[in-house]
Amino acid sequence: MSDALGALAAHLGYRLTPPQVEAMAAAVAATEPHAAALRAEPTLIDPDQGNAWSSGVRSPSVPSEGGTFSPVGLSWPLSPAEALVRLRAAHETLNCTIAFLDDRTPGDGPLANIPFAVKDVIDVAGVPTTAASLTRKDAPPAAESATVVARLEAAGAVAISKDTTTEFAVGGPHPPLTGATRNPWDPRRWAGGSSMGTAAAVAVGAVPFGLGTDVGGSVRLPSAWCGLTGLKPTAGSVPRTGVVPLSWTAETVGPIARDAATVATVFDLIRGPDGRDPRARELPPLVFPDVRGLRIALPGGYLTELCDSAVRAGVAELVDALTAAGAVIVPGEIPGAERALPIGYEIVFTEAAALHRIDADRWDSYDPVTVARISQGITTPASDYLRALQFRAELQAELDAVFAGADLIIVPTTPATAPRLPDCTVTIDGERYPLYAAQSRATMLGNLTGAPGLAVPTGFAPDGLPVSALLIAPPHREGTVLAAARHYQEHTDHHRRRPPGFA
Amino acid sequence: MSDALGALAAHLGYRLTPPQVEAMAAAVAATEPHAAALRAEPTLIDPDQGNAWSSGVRSPSVPSEGGTFSPVGLSWPLSPAEALVRLRAAHETLNCTIAFLDDRTPGDGPLANIPFAVKDVIDVAGVPTTAASLTRKDAPPAAESATVVARLEAAGAVAISKDTTTEFAVGGPHPPLTGATRNPWDPRRWAGGSSMGTAAAVAVGAVPFGLGTDVGGSVRLPSAWCGLTGLKPTAGSVPRTGVVPLSWTAETVGPIARDAATVATVFDLIRGPDGRDPRARELPPLVFPDVRGLRIALPGGYLTELCDSAVRAGVAELVDALTAAGAVIVPGEIPGAERALPIGYEIVFTEAAALHRIDADRWDSYDPVTVARISQGITTPASDYLRALQFRAELQAELDAVFAGADLIIVPTTPATAPRLPDCTVTIDGERYPLYAAQSRATMLGNLTGAPGLAVPTGFAPDGLPVSALLIAPPHREGTVLAAARHYQEHTDHHRRRPPGFA
Repeated sequence: MSDALGALAAHLGYRLTPPQVEAMAAAVAATEPHAAALRAEPTLIDPDQGNAWSSGVRSPSVPSEGGTFSPVGLSWPLSPAEALVRLRAAHETLNCTIAFLDDRTPGDGPLANIPFAVKDVIDVAGVPTTAASLTRKDAPPAAESATVVARLEAAGAVAISKDTTTEFAVGGPHPPLTGATRNPWDPRRWAGGSSMGTAAAVAVGAVPFGLGTDVGGSVRLPSAWCGLTGLKPTAGSVPRTGVVPLSWTAETVGPIARDAATVATVFDLIRGPDGRDPRARELPPLVFPDVRGLRIALPGGYLTELCDSAVRAGVAELVDALTAAGAVIVPGEIPGAERALPIGYEIVFTEAAALHRIDADRWDSYDPVTVARISQGITTPASDYLRALQFRAELQAELDAVFAGADLIIVPTTPATAPRLPDCTVTIDGERYPLYAAQSRATMLGNLTGAPGLAVPTGFAPDGLPVSALLIAPPHREGTVLAAARHYQEHTDHHRRRPPGFA
Repeated sequence: MSDALGALAAHLGYRLTPPQVEAMAAAVAATEPHAAALRAEPTLIDPDQGNAWSSGVRSPSVPSEGGTFSPVGLSWPLSPAEALVRLRAAHETLNCTIAFLDDRTPGDGPLANIPFAVKDVIDVAGVPTTAASLTRKDAPPAAESATVVARLEAAGAVAISKDTTTEFAVGGPHPPLTGATRNPWDPRRWAGGSSMGTAAAVAVGAVPFGLGTDVGGSVRLPSAWCGLTGLKPTAGSVPRTGVVPLSWTAETVGPIARDAATVATVFDLIRGPDGRDPRARELPPLVFPDVRGLRIALPGGYLTELCDSAVRAGVAELVDALTAAGAVIVPGEIPGAERALPIGYEIVFTEAAALHRIDADRWDSYDPVTVARISQGITTPASDYLRALQFRAELQAELDAVFAGADLIIVPTTPATAPRLPDCTVTIDGERYPLYAAQSRATMLGNLTGAPGLAVPTGFAPDGLPVSALLIAPPHREGTVLAAARHYQEHTDHHRRRPPGFA
């Protein structure tokens, strides 16, 4: 098996060392039962059906109740220069920044002079984008800013940092270029992956928001572990032009902030087609429904069964706050959710292997975790890949069924508080679990289907670290989760708490 | 190589006999140089960019000059019952029909009581769809008509036949269920592939039009070989709901008729989204420009270099007629065109293998040619498939460059007149060539890129068989090729000639 896969990878032009081949074969073997199960369920569904949510073929119904979003200007106590001072100090402890940007020119607009942080997989004109890879440490400066950065700069905001990330947003917690980023709430913990530096920059109070990317939870997980509000928007709603690509299907850009109101403001500015990203299409308006009458589904099973009791309590507190305001609990289960993680990874790693063919002779300089993860996608048969894309549509149909009777779904964002360094195991009710087994159980559902998801801080576990709930809405209904979170945040102060060392 | 591929196919659940494995390995080996060349040119292009023409992300500019299409009612001298008499007689000689439909109810509308023919991969409610496969000869009746059939029936037209096709629109000229369909112009020749029965039904004068499908030329080739006008519309313009799928990327439904005016009327009725086919999107209006001032590109190279002199003369006659009316010749070359055929086949066979997994244990009952062709897609690595999809976008960019200065492209539809039965070789200036080496050289360009193409009869070769020119337009500019053909057909009578035995 390992020999055959190694030979096929070599045939396809990927130069792997024998240990890399072993790791690839082990990863393929772990995915095989899930791929085999899908093979045993053949279907004629057009794989493109999985893009129907984002493409507008199935137009999302817009709630008739509720107000349209009115963007407000943000205020922030620190100028970009003051924010840089604060960020530099935090970096000393947390190791959260790859580049400090001292020389950006503020513009006019609703975000005039507001500093923000940018994950270093997103281009800022004139600055190299390293993606935290040794292979890109001498990358030339980006010729132009990513669409999302350009839109924020056009609104007057000022990018002050290129932030740490796992390598290419997919590698391990300890990228060879930078090492791990520490958690502001406890430097013995990890800040999360992959948008770890961005989450840290927000959590320490240097910036009111930052831009991350999310391919399996990479906005929502560091938001959860750092006590922040982070949005993975609907697939296709935010252009990815100028973002180092990892997965065409699963990846989105998303804002990380302290509160939902700030997330809404940033999301409103960065959403909508740019005429360059072929998946970014015309969008319906962003509508914020009333919390009263919102129907909330609380699925059981895979999404919730492995979960620390402190996380569970936080979810319950949020749900209680919403029902106290007139929301109602409705039934809703997603039986296919347990397949989302392995099938999502199958798609992501297949696309990542295809994308990283461009550096196929430089993988020996990659983080070994990057190689171990994405190499399994080198040999994915196209028929398996297409079957996985078909499963997207099948899983969307399950969500459609839930959303026929529910406005949003609430589950834990991730089962445990922030992973312990250096091994990044997580602890669930006293028992340790490996990172990748636990972290993305709930988040990948949104990457695979394209549904938007908002991580919302719901308090603190006995270990002093933040816990988080994940609010999931139908496609293009980000307004629903943002309105629910805003209501909750008007009545709680979890999101206002600052890590003790960075008050 | 063969052993490894066979083992991989078995692992993926496809039961192939040793000779089938040998054929698969030979086909994979033939594709490998093309796949390897693409691998050596890695790119970060989103594969979905290749859907941008059809999805409306890159909105096609609509010509400002010229009239909007005004549908006209068709007239036809034969009632459906009379058409069936004529078709039954033709079938005796040509073997062109799988099912005669005696009991359809005509409706009201612009096509009231007009008979039409339907390739037997397209559902007609209440009638089995066999796709000319032994595996479907006892298929249950289709529960509902395909969108395209339902739209024509809603306009009053009456389906009178399910027509022969190569098996699943991809098998060899001699499908085991029916055998070959003979050419009305010379029964020693083949009517073409794959919409062969539909073309024959139109050519013998039983019906004014029929519906075929085109995945590599399957509307345009039988149109060319039977002296007819046949349209492969822009990808995504005609819903495929209710059509036995072969390739999600490359396949379209298209009308076959004697003249461009009839094609335009039918196309106008069947185009536009149905809310079910995820690739069928909102369309710009159909606009018919004036021939005067049309800019025509006549690319050389691969698209024209292998071509019988009689075919060449027909193209020249058409071009002369258009320039006499004020069209102008402009430069325009498509260097990537020579890669369209192997890369197009790679995509088609990969998708076909994925689709036919549903019958993976019944391939021993398939036409061996079907298996030999589509089995090579079983083992396609996803990274190669994705690279092939990326090439679509690269080839579209070449066409964009041509269309920046040209309104249409004219090339030979296929290099030679109809293939000789039984071996289906074609003769080009006295030399014989195997079928698959020659037939789709020009047509696959449209399937791979999504560009529309119209086969137009341009007269007859010394062997008495029709020759044809292919008019290619930018996406959603079917009106341009239809207007050019209509002008030509107003001044020539090639399209009005009837095969001697069916006058």
